[in-house]
Amino acid sequence: MRQAGAIAELIEALRCLPGVGPKTAQRMTLHLLQRDRDAAGRLSEALRQALEKVGLCAQCRTLTEHSLCEYCASPGRDRSLLCIVESPAEVLAISRSTGYKGLFFVLNGRLSPLDGIGPEELGLDVLEQRLKDDGVAELILATNTTVEGEATAHYLSDMARRHGVRTTRIAHGIPFGGELEYVDGATLSHAFDGRKDF
Amino acid sequence: MRQAGAIAELIEALRCLPGVGPKTAQRMTLHLLQRDRDAAGRLSEALRQALEKVGLCAQCRTLTEHSLCEYCASPGRDRSLLCIVESPAEVLAISRSTGYKGLFFVLNGRLSPLDGIGPEELGLDVLEQRLKDDGVAELILATNTTVEGEATAHYLSDMARRHGVRTTRIAHGIPFGGELEYVDGATLSHAFDGRKDF
Repeated sequence: MRQAGAIAELIEALRCLPGVGPKTAQRMTLHLLQRDRDAAGRLSEALRQALEKVGLCAQCRTLTEHSLCEYCASPGRDRSLLCIVESPAEVLAISRSTGYKGLFFVLNGRLSPLDGIGPEELGLDVLEQRLKDDGVAELILATNTTVEGEATAHYLSDMARRHGVRTTRIAHGIPFGGELEYVDGATLSHAFDGRKDF
Repeated sequence: MRQAGAIAELIEALRCLPGVGPKTAQRMTLHLLQRDRDAAGRLSEALRQALEKVGLCAQCRTLTEHSLCEYCASPGRDRSLLCIVESPAEVLAISRSTGYKGLFFVLNGRLSPLDGIGPEELGLDVLEQRLKDDGVAELILATNTTVEGEATAHYLSDMARRHGVRTTRIAHGIPFGGELEYVDGATLSHAFDGRKDF
């Protein structure tokens, strides 16, 4: 790349976006500067506004513009259900696809002692306080099925047990519409172990 | 999507980037706000700076921060060669991959009367003045091989002929390393018609 100055800096800055490498960043830069300057201005302003306004919900740690997110602030949701997820994207995915009407708690990460991420970084002290005080009847664990996600789930279920709160884990098995023949072994083995009366 | 306000606006604004749909835009937004706020700030600022500083080179219409781009301003380049391309990205591609040491002229488009893009929108009046005055000995046509690109090339070669300037077109044929068996028919036919002594 032989461009210098502001163009090179914009190409470099666009590479912070997930999935954007040097070629895509260059294509985006030239597209914005050549064909869509209005949109580039709007994007710059939207980034500035979002950084200024958006923070974490004081209660559930998802991203929000207010001190409480729309879920925590809504009077219509069932406060006895609390679903634990790793990131705000999963809050959106669950709200969009399921009929879940309880509250969420976002870890913004997962337990990973090697990376220096312990219970406090995930806000688990806040969560424990809530399990103690807040009338939560069921803790739904929706962390991912990675090693760290599973470890986090075990840690949380121990914590819930200490406070006498029932813990459930979302089901893992064959994806809907998936064919047994093509499903990976770990999933198939989980699906077998988790079989239910029919 | 149930997000509102600044988050939704950022998701919407990111969709101006080429190749970014609603899902990718949401992923980018959450990534930036959750994990990479510094980079988001840098991106906002880089966009602002680039919009403020970057314009078209007065002589060749490529993107630059100065009144003349680095190619036009460089005393070391051969001013008797002028290569016509459709966009600044192609200037970069040619500079990177070839040993070309002449100047460029960027159309920022191609002749397309149906879309209201005529000679003036492409700066062809400026180009004609240059062919008349500037001692250009060879005009190298590197427009794309689309219908409009070819039409533009023909228009330019007519113009060059009026001013007694030699016109060449970059070669079209089998891509380097390509296998005849898998090359499309139009390319193969062009390659046959364009065969040379060996």
